[in-house]
Amino acid sequence: MKLFGYWRSSATYRVRIALALKNLDYEYVPVNLLKGEQKSEAYLARNPLGLVPALETDDGAVLTQSLAIIAYLEETFPEPSLMPDDAAARANARSIALTLASEAQPFMNLRIQQYLKNEIGLDENGVNKWLNQWPGGAMAAVEKTLARTAGDFCIGDTPGLADCFLVPQFFGASRFGVDVSGLKKMKEIHDRCQQHTAFIKAHPDNQPDAVKG
Amino acid sequence: MKLFGYWRSSATYRVRIALALKNLDYEYVPVNLLKGEQKSEAYLARNPLGLVPALETDDGAVLTQSLAIIAYLEETFPEPSLMPDDAAARANARSIALTLASEAQPFMNLRIQQYLKNEIGLDENGVNKWLNQWPGGAMAAVEKTLARTAGDFCIGDTPGLADCFLVPQFFGASRFGVDVSGLKKMKEIHDRCQQHTAFIKAHPDNQPDAVKG
Repeated sequence: MKLFGYWRSSATYRVRIALALKNLDYEYVPVNLLKGEQKSEAYLARNPLGLVPALETDDGAVLTQSLAIIAYLEETFPEPSLMPDDAAARANARSIALTLASEAQPFMNLRIQQYLKNEIGLDENGVNKWLNQWPGGAMAAVEKTLARTAGDFCIGDTPGLADCFLVPQFFGASRFGVDVSGLKKMKEIHDRCQQHTAFIKAHPDNQPDAVKG
Repeated sequence: MKLFGYWRSSATYRVRIALALKNLDYEYVPVNLLKGEQKSEAYLARNPLGLVPALETDDGAVLTQSLAIIAYLEETFPEPSLMPDDAAARANARSIALTLASEAQPFMNLRIQQYLKNEIGLDENGVNKWLNQWPGGAMAAVEKTLARTAGDFCIGDTPGLADCFLVPQFFGASRFGVDVSGLKKMKEIHDRCQQHTAFIKAHPDNQPDAVKG
């Protein structure tokens, strides 16, 4: 398998965590977002959406959208599973992943921040208020869910799907100045994951395209 | 099962389509978003996220996020299936659903449009430009995917998961003035779905809380 991605892309980071939790080998193909390589002809021929990540399977199929890629990995390589046994617990895992993927991350994406600044003319305060209202609000909602579902990790005591989404979201939010001081359970899980081999392997700083310093 | 929702909420509409395609009976409990009932104590006690839809199962579990609810329905009531047989085709179905759920709908949500107008001060032109850039851009990306995957419906000739997302997105985008004139395959699928019993049953206008005229 080939994973097309970018070290600091939070959606790529989610898939790297899933691959590492499942002990799967893959070739990592960096797509430099700062140079616009996701819009190059060569990449668009593979993935017309012009987004990372994309996973090229051994059959040559190109899969897009991090949660769809992770669902494919779960179906194709079921062990170790990233999902809890109970149907309602699986729904909770997916709900946490989806709240972060559809209500937090989209509003924090670099292209949106650039649009707010360059097209709409928001100043730094305005962007910060936006980030705390939307990504911050969605993360606060997840914090409430975690009070019901979490043990050492998002759902009980085994790392899985929801943790693949929580860690990159917390990483990105901290980087962009979202106030995460009230998200105590989330921080506790994030910090625990930083000690886990799979999460260490998947961390942006440990990728071949990472820019140091 | 009880579905808490609102007639015009596109995320509720998705779940109604899935329930209807699976011929499942449920009690529909309207939550009036215009009156802020999703923020009432009674509702927050059920769903602390304060969003619709929520599905209360016969076991009393309350599930949130439309795609997580639909995945639960698919696991719990597998026939008729909303997913194709092939793993890569299933990934395509999920990718279309996720592109609409995480890159189109969030940027069109009423609370975001209100923030753009009331907090940031965008005029009607500015909001229209935003809607065409983000929801419109994501829908154009899905249109490209459909060129590879669609038959009569999003994935081949059977209605399923991706169609549960396409129809409400097309409905909402048309309502909010996104230019959909270039989305020919999407419109063709949307229009075909309007003739299908399950989609007719799930349509906003056919709900008990619909406001006519």
